[in-house]
Amino acid sequence: MTESVLDEIAWTAEGLVPAIAQDWQTGEILMLAWMNRQSLAQTISGGEAVYWSRSRQKLWHKGESSGHTQRVVELRLDCDSDVILLRVEQEGNIACHTGRRSCFYRKLDSDCWRETDGVIKTPGEIYGKQP
Amino acid sequence: MTESVLDEIAWTAEGLVPAIAQDWQTGEILMLAWMNRQSLAQTISGGEAVYWSRSRQKLWHKGESSGHTQRVVELRLDCDSDVILLRVEQEGNIACHTGRRSCFYRKLDSDCWRETDGVIKTPGEIYGKQP
Repeated sequence: MTESVLDEIAWTAEGLVPAIAQDWQTGEILMLAWMNRQSLAQTISGGEAVYWSRSRQKLWHKGESSGHTQRVVELRLDCDSDVILLRVEQEGNIACHTGRRSCFYRKLDSDCWRETDGVIKTPGEIYGKQP
Repeated sequence: MTESVLDEIAWTAEGLVPAIAQDWQTGEILMLAWMNRQSLAQTISGGEAVYWSRSRQKLWHKGESSGHTQRVVELRLDCDSDVILLRVEQEGNIACHTGRRSCFYRKLDSDCWRETDGVIKTPGEIYGKQP
């Protein structure tokens, strides 16, 4: 990888870019997280998704504690160079920390956001302790 | 729609939330834009995607100048309530202002972001003048 691949990104003032993870086979949108320059570089070199955790202010190799890593099949960039799309193979078929396949498990149903997708594994089962 | 649907969103300090538009039939990710409270309210009430243009600092009814509106089939919210997913029917099969189906028309190919998807209509054809 050359630095020009990273230079082309229109990073925010905080040096971040939103990254959408999509299941490469089903097309399902799994999650949206953020990347900084280092996390994108590691994602490209290592072949697994590495994000920047804004809450913890540190690199976050997705799956480091859950085992639910994301193998990158394809990386895409949008027209304004300010959004990245990762087409991934999701280990364990669980992307969400709640134990669901996708983070987008709530759907607008007239007057509320209604849960539509069930938990595959509880956080306790995933992380080895009760949530 | 009740206000509680909007209250549940974890808006940024600027009062925005990222919104991903996905083709409801093919699963293709078309674009990512931003919404504020008013644009989400209009999206829900009108049934067509209305974003907040950060560059123009105004409401942006997608397709208002191109005709490429997005009919909302389903709205989803993620686990942290800070990302919205719109499953849409894309008018004209063109979501990108460059005249391509999706804004994510570049793919990482070893050392560069390579264009993979062609232009369906030129911006001149879409907007009625040369770009």
